[in-house]
Parts: sequence; structure tokens; C-alpha cells
Amino acid sequence: MLGRHDLMLAVVTALGAIGVIAAVAAPLARAATDGPLVIAKQGYFFVGGKIDTSIEGSPMVGQMYVEFQIPQDQKHPYPIVMIHGGSQTGTNFTGTPDGREGWAQYFLRRGYAVYVVDQVARGRAAYAAPVYGPTASAKLDWVEMRFVAPERSRRWPQAHLHTQWPGSGHPGDAAFDQFYASQMPSIADFARQQEINRDAGIALLDKIGPAILLTHSQSGAMGWPIADARPDFVRAIVAVEPSGPPVHDVEFKGAPD
Amino acid sequence: MLGRHDLMLAVVTALGAIGVIAAVAAPLARAATDGPLVIAKQGYFFVGGKIDTSIEGSPMVGQMYVEFQIPQDQKHPYPIVMIHGGSQTGTNFTGTPDGREGWAQYFLRRGYAVYVVDQVARGRAAYAAPVYGPTASAKLDWVEMRFVAPERSRRWPQAHLHTQWPGSGHPGDAAFDQFYASQMPSIADFARQQEINRDAGIALLDKIGPAILLTHSQSGAMGWPIADARPDFVRAIVAVEPSGPPVHDVEFKGAPD
Repeated sequence: MLGRHDLMLAVVTALGAIGVIAAVAAPLARAATDGPLVIAKQGYFFVGGKIDTSIEGSPMVGQMYVEFQIPQDQKHPYPIVMIHGGSQTGTNFTGTPDGREGWAQYFLRRGYAVYVVDQVARGRAAYAAPVYGPTASAKLDWVEMRFVAPERSRRWPQAHLHTQWPGSGHPGDAAFDQFYASQMPSIADFARQQEINRDAGIALLDKIGPAILLTHSQSGAMGWPIADARPDFVRAIVAVEPSGPPVHDVEFKGAPD
Repeated sequence: MLGRHDLMLAVVTALGAIGVIAAVAAPLARAATDGPLVIAKQGYFFVGGKIDTSIEGSPMVGQMYVEFQIPQDQKHPYPIVMIHGGSQTGTNFTGTPDGREGWAQYFLRRGYAVYVVDQVARGRAAYAAPVYGPTASAKLDWVEMRFVAPERSRRWPQAHLHTQWPGSGHPGDAAFDQFYASQMPSIADFARQQEINRDAGIALLDKIGPAILLTHSQSGAMGWPIADARPDFVRAIVAVEPSGPPVHDVEFKGAPD
């Protein structure tokens, strides 16, 4: 098992490296960032699913959807696996609500292969109601308060520093509505979501080999147990606003017996 | 309203044109088909959604998910809008179950801009249960009989001609399982699906302008009413194994009053 301290170092290192990339990439790689995307291969696959013949209709369960793009000029040995957070899908990384490129294209242009997932039971990874149970959905006022315009509701001291959202941040504004259109119902049981996505994430690494995990918000709590299970395959975790980081001596639940 | 006869001509013409492209493209455009994909722009957006404040939580309803890629060397004035069929999503066009490129890449390589949708209430277009009602799911034996291996069940005279499925066509085979993993629950009411996807398809054309509609199976029944509503924006319909073509004097229901 990867030690907690080692993992945190990996996170800090990865964040530092990304910062350096962002700082130096503009002058060094202007052609790549301004011109067309040159893609050696793109496509999708599912990982982690099993046909469950014990359920009526024998649905596939446990599968994660993964879309990938490999740049023609791949400059880095490890791909970035991008795992979105709660109520969202891979669209978090494949564009922005106001129509700009997302982090998938950002890192593609800088020579990284990227794998963007839809979590198990969300988006293109089908939700099988008899297996996953009830769903919960993000509500309009919560999305506005929590994600789009926290600076208006000021629920925490730093909320006024949230200034980068494009547009007015009100329902009816184009960027707000695009983001709100991307909200998805999710398995109501968050612990269950973490378990099934940990398992699918492990299956993904077993298929593609060593990678950098980029987690965000809810999926923060998925990155650490994936690294625990496959320490040789997780070369870094870039945890952005993560749920469940290994601080304050929190211990995570291991795989089910 | 576009006449039935005109529409059929458009379909035949488009199918003929595609046939010609497939026949001549290999020698003329080997570099484009063999080398990297060179993409001027890629991304996604939602169309057709509205926030419904009459429902608890005020969900977005009616939105269609659209991902697009514009080739650097765009050779054709009209993009192709690809609308998948029943129980599926845009993955029908973005790859094959055995990992080859899909029709999205095929046409991109030949200079077409492509827009690949997830139907309303499916895949990355969220399913809002209070709005759309109960779902229905494709079952294992039905998928095997109807799509993967009709040559074994021989439910129609030509079924033995189905010979191009990769792999054994049995559950447990990699290509079978990849395809089965892509199955999605759908709104149980097919007529309702057609109405909401017609409306979202109209919104898509209002956003992007004139296009070629490529429909398949269930979405055949969506292409014709979209063309009826926006005859100037539908330059051709390529209907592949379509549900509901306008033959045998069938009349389709128009927009609700």
C-alpha cells in the first residue's frame, strides 16, 4: 500500500509540475496551442462491467465509460485519466460552458494522452436502477449557490474570491444554462459511488497501465483508494478541490472482503 | 412542408453520394484516412433545454447533448448530424465495439464537420425521472437476437446475411460485451421520445444551420419531422435501417398544436 505521506508528496509534486507547465507552455508551444489538434487516435471503451444474469434482463453493471485521445506528438510517458465530480460527466473536461476548450484539449495540445471518463452509472455509463437504487439530483438553487455564483451567497469567508465564472451567473444566461444542462442524477448513496468507481478505475489502469489521475471534487475520494490498490500504476494524483483527501488522519475504507 | 417525394429523393441522393464517397475516397485520400486526425475545433454543447421551475429542484428538461468536431481541411459546406437509435448514445458513431474508428472519424477524415448527439434523456443528456416517466431497457437475449447475432435466431429470411459482426457474438466475447455495455435505459414511451428529440433536433439546426441528417434505426422516425419543420436546413437525410420512413403512404404526426 502506498503510504499516505508518499501519496501527498505525489499530489504536491504533480500540482507543482502542472503549475510549471502552465507557466512555461505559452511561449514554448504557441503553435501547438493555437493551431489544430493533431490526434493520432481517438475513441472510447468501457471498463469494469459485468453481465449480471441474476437480475431481470441481465444488465451490464459496474461499467465506466472512457473516451480517449492520443496526440500525434505524444511528449509524456503517462496519460492523464480525468475523473469528474458529483452530478457531472466527462464534459467537465471536454469543454467549458461558454464554449472554450477544456482541460482534455489543454493537455492534448501539450503532448499528453488523455482518458476522460463518465463515472459508473452516469452519462454514457448506463444507470441500471435495479442495481444502483435511487438517484439524487442537484437542484437549481444549490448549483447556483455552490458552483456558479458562491460570491453572491457568501457561505464561506473566501467566497468573494470566486470571480472567474463567465457570464452573469444567473439562470437564463447562456453559460449558466449550458452548465446546468450538464447536471446529471447520480446514485444517492455516495459511499456506493466511491466503491464502484474505485473498482472501475482499477480496471481502467489494469487496461492502460501507469497514468496520472486527475480528480475533482467528489472524485477526490476515488483517486486515493485507486492508488492504494494499484500503487505502481498511479504515478501522480492531481486532486483539484477534492473530497476526501488523506489529511487529518482520515482512514479510508478498504476493498470489501 | 417538404414533400414526401422530395424527401425520399433527398434520401436516395444522399445515400448515392455516400456510396460514391466510400468507393472513391480510399485512393484519393489515403493520407487523410491513414494519418492523424487534424481537428480545427472540437467540443460540445446542449440544445433545446429549458429550466422547468414547476418541478421540484427546477431541473433542465428537453436538452440534447451534442459533441462536434470540425476538420482543419473542411471540404464540404454541410456538416453531418449523427442521431443514434434506440437504447444507444453517440458512441454508435465515435467508435466500434472492437475498437476501430467510427463514422464520426470516417467522415471527419473526408472533410466533413460532424455533430454527434446523445438523444434527449439519454447518455450525457440527463434523464429527469419526474418529467420523462418510466424507462425501458434492452435485455441481453434481445440484443443478441436483434443486433449482434440475428443469423443465429433467423427471425427473418435475410438474417443469415448478417455476417460482419466482429468476434463470436456471444456474451463474454470482448466486442459483444463492449456493445452490451453501451446499452442505455430509455423513456418507455417511444412516441414521446420522437417528439422531444424532434424538438431538440430543430433547436440544433437553428443553432448550426443547414446540415445533413444521418439517422439510424429508432432515430429514422426523428429525421423526417425535423425536415418537415426545417426544410431549408435539412439538405439530405441519410436514413440507415430507419424506423418510420415515409413509405406506404404513412403520414407522420406534425408538431403539437
